[in-house]
Amino acid sequence: MEVTRELAHYVVESRYADIPEKVRHEAARSFLNWVGCAVGASRHETVERALRALAEFSGPPQATVLGRGERLDIMQAALMNGITSHTFDFDDTHLKTVIHPSGPVASAILALAEHQPVTGEDFLHAFILGVEVECRIGNSVYPEHYDVGWHITGTAGVFGAAAAAGRLLGLNEQQMVWALGIAATQSSGLREMFGTMCKPFHPGNAARNGLLAALLAAQDFTSSNQGIEARRGFAHVLSTGFKPGKITEGLGKTFEISSNTYKPFACGIVIHPAIDGCIRLRNEHGLAAEAIESIALRTHPLVLELTGKRTPQTGLEGKFSVYHSAAVAIIHGAAGEAEYSDAVVRDPRVIALRDKVTATVDRSVHEDQVHITIKLKDGRTLEKFVEHAIGSVAKPMSDADLEAKFRGFANGILSQAETDKLIRLCWGVAKLKDAGEVARASVPAAAAARKRVGA
Amino acid sequence: MEVTRELAHYVVESRYADIPEKVRHEAARSFLNWVGCAVGASRHETVERALRALAEFSGPPQATVLGRGERLDIMQAALMNGITSHTFDFDDTHLKTVIHPSGPVASAILALAEHQPVTGEDFLHAFILGVEVECRIGNSVYPEHYDVGWHITGTAGVFGAAAAAGRLLGLNEQQMVWALGIAATQSSGLREMFGTMCKPFHPGNAARNGLLAALLAAQDFTSSNQGIEARRGFAHVLSTGFKPGKITEGLGKTFEISSNTYKPFACGIVIHPAIDGCIRLRNEHGLAAEAIESIALRTHPLVLELTGKRTPQTGLEGKFSVYHSAAVAIIHGAAGEAEYSDAVVRDPRVIALRDKVTATVDRSVHEDQVHITIKLKDGRTLEKFVEHAIGSVAKPMSDADLEAKFRGFANGILSQAETDKLIRLCWGVAKLKDAGEVARASVPAAAAARKRVGA
Repeated sequence: MEVTRELAHYVVESRYADIPEKVRHEAARSFLNWVGCAVGASRHETVERALRALAEFSGPPQATVLGRGERLDIMQAALMNGITSHTFDFDDTHLKTVIHPSGPVASAILALAEHQPVTGEDFLHAFILGVEVECRIGNSVYPEHYDVGWHITGTAGVFGAAAAAGRLLGLNEQQMVWALGIAATQSSGLREMFGTMCKPFHPGNAARNGLLAALLAAQDFTSSNQGIEARRGFAHVLSTGFKPGKITEGLGKTFEISSNTYKPFACGIVIHPAIDGCIRLRNEHGLAAEAIESIALRTHPLVLELTGKRTPQTGLEGKFSVYHSAAVAIIHGAAGEAEYSDAVVRDPRVIALRDKVTATVDRSVHEDQVHITIKLKDGRTLEKFVEHAIGSVAKPMSDADLEAKFRGFANGILSQAETDKLIRLCWGVAKLKDAGEVARASVPAAAAARKRVGA
Repeated sequence: MEVTRELAHYVVESRYADIPEKVRHEAARSFLNWVGCAVGASRHETVERALRALAEFSGPPQATVLGRGERLDIMQAALMNGITSHTFDFDDTHLKTVIHPSGPVASAILALAEHQPVTGEDFLHAFILGVEVECRIGNSVYPEHYDVGWHITGTAGVFGAAAAAGRLLGLNEQQMVWALGIAATQSSGLREMFGTMCKPFHPGNAARNGLLAALLAAQDFTSSNQGIEARRGFAHVLSTGFKPGKITEGLGKTFEISSNTYKPFACGIVIHPAIDGCIRLRNEHGLAAEAIESIALRTHPLVLELTGKRTPQTGLEGKFSVYHSAAVAIIHGAAGEAEYSDAVVRDPRVIALRDKVTATVDRSVHEDQVHITIKLKDGRTLEKFVEHAIGSVAKPMSDADLEAKFRGFANGILSQAETDKLIRLCWGVAKLKDAGEVARASVPAAAAARKRVGA
């Protein structure tokens, strides 16, 4: 079975008219969420260090680093936006494979779109195709590939970036086969890097290298014709299991982006049910921290295994504490990046409530669930059973939820008017004459002016 | 065992004074051979296509594409020189691992040296250390890693490039640990790509990515502290076998570059004994093709398995024909890139002699050996048993052989005077005030002038 060629054929021949409206809308949701994540982390130290390392080697100012004033050559911009968008680990997740699909693909083609303008329709189409390619390749080797130790967002992402960029560059079928082959031979990223700056580097690197693959293929730089399925190709070398049918079955009929999900909270997914339930109880009952006697959680075993930190000292440790997370859910009604700052973790009011939280394992509770019992000082007892946490496939974030999340990211970086405009452009990306407009609109006026003076 | 840290410690602390003179000379030989390979292939279509793809995204003109007038940013120059130097598959080989060690390392640091000048001594020292790192990492996972399907020049090369560039950037031990980690998480390159333009892309990509790793680490971009040995690090994810002791035993006492070898002929190593023997018979007896009745070879079985093509039609096919190779050895007294051109493969005189060559398998003949029997039309019979082919560890190419090979590459690209100067600079690289001088001296005056007018 020549899956590399079948995939290339599909990417080259696909028509936007054949993409269902619901799929297009899910793509816009993914894109909006991705832009927000990138803008939100644009001042992070990870981003600053990478920029300091790269800036003096950049080519012409072809593309924007989202949320910032710098403009870099398209390969460096792709790298930077892939890094920023995954720095908070808050971007979208294809739960079947734990790929974060948007980062590698959107980073590559938004940079390209600024250099070589394309319509929003072509852009969104290429985005959907890129996500399709990386997730199908991911499906074909998951879970064995992930179990070997590969960070699948990096290893599969480079194919998605190559396919999407190749589509926008107008590659023919043979060139697309080569682009996928050049991507295959760059596929990399180790799970060992989790917890270091190299984790967000992976989608950035996938974007940069996928873009390079497409640019080389456009000049007829040759590669294997079976980069994915050959005996010494991607699937057999990087995985102990390979189901090629997962790449080709239903191609063009079902769309992997339809099962994309978005995290409402800036922490590991296992504590999302507890946070969701606490926020709901807070809002339903107008709860104040001081009125609470105790909070008892009955959870899936993984919650205590992964996030059982009783007395976190830093923001990062707070992300591994179900106790801290429940406390901020009650006090702040949110669990975004701000609620995992060092300052909030050390806030005496948060600590006081955190120490009233207990969690016990209940093997009847599913990963997506939690039982919450809150005892109030006035003697009342409040209960909540969360069946599916917000952000799961069964209970997705609404468009309004995604907008609110976006506003949380943009807060302090963009003005209200700039945020409104950027949200509008993301929702309407398919209608834009020039998709690159989104990238430029992500730069706060102050930063843009500063760069002009500096230039 | 913390092999990543031990290796980083060594690279950071090593002193040039502790490198034996013999090792330094072998490094100069490797470097000379590498520069020649890069200059020789600098006009090849593989190189032209890559340059066309990249040029408009290059940063400032910081470093030279060897043998050409273009100057690119250091990461692109590293990529290009890695590609050119491996395009003819004629660069050096560390036979224990089949790594081609110079490409990834020299490409990275020669580009860096043009941007941030360093003495020849520091340059050669960094080069030796980079080769040491990549070959020791290679030793630790060979042969299992190669058998899985990895092109080890790419996968191990990225470590060598990172280490050497990191040394020139003055990284401290922790930064060097991170550089090796950032290299680990970019390690890639599939054997499936052999026979396509992606094969020479691998050392280029290793150079580019290793350089990036060092630049990021210099800005404290963090990575794992056990990038090589961790359970989900390089060795366990990319290999089924790992011998960490091979990385640390004798570090600083023995040098892997001492077992580096250089190919005298532009084809697979299995037919080198036959070519070597035919050239020697030709020169010893002043043989002309027309005087020959037949040439009978008794060879190791691999020769016919890999290079048994009876009637090659193209230059590339000629490389897989022991018959063609023996014929050009007699007629031209050489088997360089020129003798594997389409024109020579189709030359009636070559074809006539080729058709007089027979080859039979003799299981008593070692891979490095051949028995040759030439019958002449005047009734005489000439015999030659080659015990070790020229270019093997047992019978290395002499300095004069390497110079002659270099001149073959430079012929038609550089003038005689330019060639002489470049050879002198390579031999004396350790004495240079500015190692980047070598790169600039590789550009023919005509090409340099053309680029100045164009700029």
